[in-house]
Amino acid sequence: MEKPENARLPTVDACIHPSGGLEILSRAEVARLADTASGGMHDLMRRCALAVLTSGSASDDPRAAQELYPDFDIQVHQQDRGVRIDLYNAPAMAFVDGKIIRGVAELVAAVVRDLAYRAIELGAEGYDPDPTDDIPPPPGARNLETSEGITDAVFGLLRNSRVLEPSEPNLVVCWGGHSISREEYLYTKEVGYELGLRGLDICTGCGPGAMKGPMKGATIAHAKQRKQRMRYIGVTEPGIIAAESPNPIVNHLVIMPDIEKRLEAFVRIGHGIIVFPGGVGTAEEILYMLGLLLREENAGIPFPLVFTGPTSAAPYFEQIDRFIRLTLGDEAASRYEIIIDDPVLVAQRMLAGVNTVKGYRLAERDSFFFNWKLTIPMEFQVPFVPTHEAMASLDLHHGREPAALAADLRRAFSGIVAGNVKEEGLRRVEEHGPFEIHGDPDMMEALDALLRAFVEQRRMKIAGDYVPCYRVVA
Amino acid sequence: MEKPENARLPTVDACIHPSGGLEILSRAEVARLADTASGGMHDLMRRCALAVLTSGSASDDPRAAQELYPDFDIQVHQQDRGVRIDLYNAPAMAFVDGKIIRGVAELVAAVVRDLAYRAIELGAEGYDPDPTDDIPPPPGARNLETSEGITDAVFGLLRNSRVLEPSEPNLVVCWGGHSISREEYLYTKEVGYELGLRGLDICTGCGPGAMKGPMKGATIAHAKQRKQRMRYIGVTEPGIIAAESPNPIVNHLVIMPDIEKRLEAFVRIGHGIIVFPGGVGTAEEILYMLGLLLREENAGIPFPLVFTGPTSAAPYFEQIDRFIRLTLGDEAASRYEIIIDDPVLVAQRMLAGVNTVKGYRLAERDSFFFNWKLTIPMEFQVPFVPTHEAMASLDLHHGREPAALAADLRRAFSGIVAGNVKEEGLRRVEEHGPFEIHGDPDMMEALDALLRAFVEQRRMKIAGDYVPCYRVVA
Amino acid sequence: MEKPENARLPTVDACIHPSGGLEILSRAEVARLADTASGGMHDLMRRCALAVLTSGSASDDPRAAQELYPDFDIQVHQQDRGVRIDLYNAPAMAFVDGKIIRGVAELVAAVVRDLAYRAIELGAEGYDPDPTDDIPPPPGARNLETSEGITDAVFGLLRNSRVLEPSEPNLVVCWGGHSISREEYLYTKEVGYELGLRGLDICTGCGPGAMKGPMKGATIAHAKQRKQRMRYIGVTEPGIIAAESPNPIVNHLVIMPDIEKRLEAFVRIGHGIIVFPGGVGTAEEILYMLGLLLREENAGIPFPLVFTGPTSAAPYFEQIDRFIRLTLGDEAASRYEIIIDDPVLVAQRMLAGVNTVKGYRLAERDSFFFNWKLTIPMEFQVPFVPTHEAMASLDLHHGREPAALAADLRRAFSGIVAGNVKEEGLRRVEEHGPFEIHGDPDMMEALDALLRAFVEQRRMKIAGDYVPCYRVVA
Amino acid sequence: MEKPENARLPTVDACIHPSGGLEILSRAEVARLADTASGGMHDLMRRCALAVLTSGSASDDPRAAQELYPDFDIQVHQQDRGVRIDLYNAPAMAFVDGKIIRGVAELVAAVVRDLAYRAIELGAEGYDPDPTDDIPPPPGARNLETSEGITDAVFGLLRNSRVLEPSEPNLVVCWGGHSISREEYLYTKEVGYELGLRGLDICTGCGPGAMKGPMKGATIAHAKQRKQRMRYIGVTEPGIIAAESPNPIVNHLVIMPDIEKRLEAFVRIGHGIIVFPGGVGTAEEILYMLGLLLREENAGIPFPLVFTGPTSAAPYFEQIDRFIRLTLGDEAASRYEIIIDDPVLVAQRMLAGVNTVKGYRLAERDSFFFNWKLTIPMEFQVPFVPTHEAMASLDLHHGREPAALAADLRRAFSGIVAGNVKEEGLRRVEEHGPFEIHGDPDMMEALDALLRAFVEQRRMKIAGDYVPCYRVVA
Repeated sequence: MEKPENARLPTVDACIHPSGGLEILSRAEVARLADTASGGMHDLMRRCALAVLTSGSASDDPRAAQELYPDFDIQVHQQDRGVRIDLYNAPAMAFVDGKIIRGVAELVAAVVRDLAYRAIELGAEGYDPDPTDDIPPPPGARNLETSEGITDAVFGLLRNSRVLEPSEPNLVVCWGGHSISREEYLYTKEVGYELGLRGLDICTGCGPGAMKGPMKGATIAHAKQRKQRMRYIGVTEPGIIAAESPNPIVNHLVIMPDIEKRLEAFVRIGHGIIVFPGGVGTAEEILYMLGLLLREENAGIPFPLVFTGPTSAAPYFEQIDRFIRLTLGDEAASRYEIIIDDPVLVAQRMLAGVNTVKGYRLAERDSFFFNWKLTIPMEFQVPFVPTHEAMASLDLHHGREPAALAADLRRAFSGIVAGNVKEEGLRRVEEHGPFEIHGDPDMMEALDALLRAFVEQRRMKIAGDYVPCYRVVA
Repeated sequence: MEKPENARLPTVDACIHPSGGLEILSRAEVARLADTASGGMHDLMRRCALAVLTSGSASDDPRAAQELYPDFDIQVHQQDRGVRIDLYNAPAMAFVDGKIIRGVAELVAAVVRDLAYRAIELGAEGYDPDPTDDIPPPPGARNLETSEGITDAVFGLLRNSRVLEPSEPNLVVCWGGHSISREEYLYTKEVGYELGLRGLDICTGCGPGAMKGPMKGATIAHAKQRKQRMRYIGVTEPGIIAAESPNPIVNHLVIMPDIEKRLEAFVRIGHGIIVFPGGVGTAEEILYMLGLLLREENAGIPFPLVFTGPTSAAPYFEQIDRFIRLTLGDEAASRYEIIIDDPVLVAQRMLAGVNTVKGYRLAERDSFFFNWKLTIPMEFQVPFVPTHEAMASLDLHHGREPAALAADLRRAFSGIVAGNVKEEGLRRVEEHGPFEIHGDPDMMEALDALLRAFVEQRRMKIAGDYVPCYRVVA
Repeated sequence: MEKPENARLPTVDACIHPSGGLEILSRAEVARLADTASGGMHDLMRRCALAVLTSGSASDDPRAAQELYPDFDIQVHQQDRGVRIDLYNAPAMAFVDGKIIRGVAELVAAVVRDLAYRAIELGAEGYDPDPTDDIPPPPGARNLETSEGITDAVFGLLRNSRVLEPSEPNLVVCWGGHSISREEYLYTKEVGYELGLRGLDICTGCGPGAMKGPMKGATIAHAKQRKQRMRYIGVTEPGIIAAESPNPIVNHLVIMPDIEKRLEAFVRIGHGIIVFPGGVGTAEEILYMLGLLLREENAGIPFPLVFTGPTSAAPYFEQIDRFIRLTLGDEAASRYEIIIDDPVLVAQRMLAGVNTVKGYRLAERDSFFFNWKLTIPMEFQVPFVPTHEAMASLDLHHGREPAALAADLRRAFSGIVAGNVKEEGLRRVEEHGPFEIHGDPDMMEALDALLRAFVEQRRMKIAGDYVPCYRVVA
Repeated sequence: MEKPENARLPTVDACIHPSGGLEILSRAEVARLADTASGGMHDLMRRCALAVLTSGSASDDPRAAQELYPDFDIQVHQQDRGVRIDLYNAPAMAFVDGKIIRGVAELVAAVVRDLAYRAIELGAEGYDPDPTDDIPPPPGARNLETSEGITDAVFGLLRNSRVLEPSEPNLVVCWGGHSISREEYLYTKEVGYELGLRGLDICTGCGPGAMKGPMKGATIAHAKQRKQRMRYIGVTEPGIIAAESPNPIVNHLVIMPDIEKRLEAFVRIGHGIIVFPGGVGTAEEILYMLGLLLREENAGIPFPLVFTGPTSAAPYFEQIDRFIRLTLGDEAASRYEIIIDDPVLVAQRMLAGVNTVKGYRLAERDSFFFNWKLTIPMEFQVPFVPTHEAMASLDLHHGREPAALAADLRRAFSGIVAGNVKEEGLRRVEEHGPFEIHGDPDMMEALDALLRAFVEQRRMKIAGDYVPCYRVVA
């Protein structure tokens, strides 16, 4: 089946018979799915599938895979017992002796499933992730203009992807950089190992580095504990999947429509969060989380949050901590704990925290599998499109409500992530030069120092020299 | 937990933690479900649940259970890992030493699940089964005014109830009377036994008699064959469930919104149909099936259809056969085979037929679990409301297209079933006297003879003398 | 595969690939197994397999099957993943459309497994069930000359057949006749149904009548309770299997070497015993049980024992009760409870009794799966060979220890069973005329009355007139 | 539960309720098991259990664990549903927050199971691994004085430990050193990963280094391939377990009575063998394997055998290859393939080889789970006790049959292993000085060079300077 001629890299054709949510579709759904695969969403599906199929490659350049496998294609057909996914000129690296790795096949099926769900159930936004245009939504689209509607859409996507389970709370979300040092990577494995020994499951954003280490560590620990149903959940979105493609240890992959719904998914399904060292993406996640926890409605909700890394990462977290205290105040800092070089303690804290969460959910009659009680206001839900204008109009000044300021800081980091690794963002910066960010001088200075440190520590990108995509203007 | 005081019959309170489709609901869905349970659909849910809980009682009077358990109530609440169903003053007969029989609990959960799905997904019709009024459908309701829309709704309900499975074709639908002789009942058990020995699963309309016998026979045969996943599917509807309550051997129960969707469910999921002796309900089913198979679009579709009974039932099928030949012609008779007193041959025919169906589906790339290729036109899908006016305007004359005539004959039998055992029909006949049915004299004569024979053979009702609810007018 | 020519009844050839204990054998074991199948034990294996394959036939004549299927043969071969059992000219009744019923195949494999175990592990007795000869045991034979050795052999056989499980106590042994009235049969089904509703598993002696009814009833109840692992254990022995062939609902079959080890198996694995109406075999079982319970060492051991039947069986149990009180005294009668026509009460008593047994085992640190605490002395363990001499020398007089008298009464009934339905016994009586039984006049009178009543009630044999094989001599 | 006072290292008390072979024991077996645990074998059981409980520690000094945990004890008791294993003052490193790691608990149970089986079934040898004394075997002991008897004992132990399965051939044995370089270790992981991607299971000798790497790699690959039943089999023996304690990834542990039975176990259950770089132990294994394959009876039996390592290991294998060619001739070298730095090719070769083995077994009607066809003569089966006398009398000269010479070379290496890491061997060398080994000068020179290279490459021991336990005398 190898087809090396004329392809730049070896490729293979294959077909996948997906199970787990794609078997029993109506004729109309199959038609819509085939449409999705061949119509407006075809390119999106193609890119996401390619990301999955090139998992394990060293690059975080979102356009690299496209260039290496220009002839790759994906199509979806109906068949007797469900649907069939056909892959053409797929990267040989996803295959073993000509047969696709089963975990990879499952992830490809997850891509099809999630994009289909989005096209079928979410309507307008499914077809058009850019809400700034004004194409009308198709009939049947969910109301994504209310906070409840967005949360319902997040819930629907997660349920459809079978990530929600009526089991005991045990899901730890791990955040951190995809480009980290070997020492930091080994540390994330150790933490994952200690979490796994304690029966905890892992959820990350997919990709290498801090997203992969905890899963590998937990895999070994789960094997030692003879755990039968272990969940390694990866939550990603089309803009990031190409740069941070999911490792096939991930046995539940969800592709959320955009970065904001991805963040909401993390905090709705996670029973606790660990933050490892990372770059701007990690900073965005921290600001998002603190922005929520600083809101009065969420004051009483337990949410274990630990920042951790090896001894060498201590200065990193000191800097983060200073930045948070400066911008959001000491109260914000009271919502997290920093633990240096102690994987056992991290895992014990998480286990204790998850148990507190369980008690709270029982007392409040909230579900175990979705954190309904957490209030997430519209400003954290509406997709932020990092145009130069939007970036320039962020309001980064002292005196604002901490939660509101956190929201804008989150947007600032989000824009920089886009400028670094997302196709659309890269294009904008290439055309119009770096983003300009305005704010109070001390805040801007601290921001600049933080970003420079990320650059120096090579946390921004895996390969090549880093050319900043932003400019801090006091 | 027994509460005998002031209840006419012993009752028990209980709570059920359902699984299999009710565990993972959104906050909005739980709210709607609780609404359903407490609002407009509460009485419907109460009646259906009561039918399930009194399964096994000898009566087919739909109002008997209501009178015997006037204090019975059902409520639905959200809980940590899903929803909780509370039963108050439930019939003690569904319990063993104070604990509910697990199969019964599953069927109660199925009632809640299906009525909730209907209310949430089907909208208007869910809230209002009588389409003659003109309350507008709520937003999000499926379009039940097209044939495709109705079929989609049928599919959606069946999928939600987990009846659709991507497995090998093996589902035999058994039709026949709930009030049959002991000899006939034992014969249905034998046929079920032979089907079960051949690995076939059973689907019936729920209830006693010919709906229960095949399942019991198959249960023993499946045990002998060490079958692991056996399906005993019961398909019912709110109007009939009280009279023909599901036996707890049923391990998949679906409550379709009305008789027409129930009939569509049978022919979409069944890979073959066996008809045992029965009364007007069975005649309605036969006419429905033949009406479909006589349509040109369905000419090439294989659909095994066998009429069978013990030797004593031979005259019954001769009469049915004569009636069909007289009204629909000999071609109609070519679509079924009559087998008298030979359970092994019946099972062999079904197995061979199911294999033919499988070959056809593979060749046509149709799904195994839903017969999409079968055309069911609107006239077989639109609910027939048997008012005196509607019954009087049926067009039972020679010269019509056989399929169209079959549709009206089906309606005539449907109306008589309603007049016999459905609450609404009973009320209408009590108020306005028997239905009048018009048509060509020979057809009317044959119809009258058939119906009289049903009465004589005590096929119309289980208990008491039968007072006809119709009058045949040539 | 049907081979009707020259066979008296239709037969089929087949091969079985057994699992569950025959997959992983050493080369030596396979050789011994093949020896067993072809050598001295070949005829025994052939007869037992034939009994299993003709299960469901109406006859209790042990020689009937042999005559009907004279060409039937069985052979055992080694194969890549275990052994293969070949059947030649096997009765077509065990097959469905040319394929063997899976449950029957499992029972055939159980026959091979148990006879092989016996030949391999038990040595002498395995090769020669008649201990009156003096062929020396092969090396490695267990010591069957001590009580502990025999109990160990019983344990070994049961463990090898996978009947012993480390699960909660829930096994009810049902004893009673294979030739009972329809009313009694339906009653045994009802009791089985009520036991099944309460999660109890069933063990019987295999065969029709009271051995089949409880299993069928429990099968339906277990289906309603969605029980996943249900056990229908049949315990038989070569002498009885031909007359009372196992129904394929039996999903665990054990063939004990002789009647005494079969009785020991019942009381070691059962957590309670129900006695339905029966004939001499049932009387033998009652006497065995009471003989054990009357021993001082067993005084404190809880053992639920209920005699039950429909209203029509009340006189039967009165007579049994009188006979026991006369021979063994009122204390013996205090160890059982007679319940007439109340299946629910029977099941409730058993459930309560089984729970008492569980408490006792926990307190005494005894295993749940084998009643080690029960003392069974040699006189109940040594095979009784009912020669005319042995029968004549039984000591049935007042004044003996009740337990010792019970042992001899047990032997008397055992001899009559042999004279009625076992090949060896039939032959002896044909040669030497009826057995003579001696004892005190009142006891002999009571015995005679009891036996006559069995004859009158047609409990001795299924078909034909009964010619007594014994003569009571005061 | 932590008990730090007076213990040198933290310890914990615990109890284990084993499943998988220890649940259903007879009273006599439990008594014997308790005897085993408390009597002559108590110290052996204690030492083996301690090895399992200290798995993961860096030391290969067999006496280290004993000294660190002097108060550790193990006892076995009967209990309601089987047996209970009590641990006192167990190393805290086997516990997570006071609860024993489930995999470790399973391994402790395996120790008890295997030593009990040995004591119960193998008799003399069970009680006394030193066959040089003349205590008579207890009754029932297997005949370990014939080749068949020994093979049967090996089979019996493996079956009892549930390692034998009637599944497709897929078991690759990995040999190699416990003390290897990081580069070599990572290479073994990569090979294990590629084996795992191809669905192959892993068997090693337990312990760190080349015994752990392939299992860890395969664990990740099996997770990616969503393999459900993966086997990581560890085969060890009491003399080596303390130095090379099993990693808890091992999910099937077998403790063979001695090194020769352990070697036989490897070649009977493995469908192919990979040899990674190692020291004298690995050399012993290679000589054993070649000694068998060089025998005429085994000439036609396919047995995939690959020597592999990273590029840096190329000189190592060149030296081994030279040594083999010098001593056993070029024909011996034709039975293996050397692959340098190509994990994919190694895995592909193994997969192809395993398929050849499968075809051969099918053709020869041999079992999949045990290589009965392979002839292993007594000289490879009888335990070699490395006294100074025995070592001195090895016959290492040219001109002998290669297979016979291989047997003596195997013994030479075996003795050196004992002198290096086994308690008994260490003691002998401490008392009497290094072993003397005699032979032809060129062979002795080559041997010495090989052993010196092992020392230089630090393959003899993990920690400390190596003092040779042997002296080569030409």
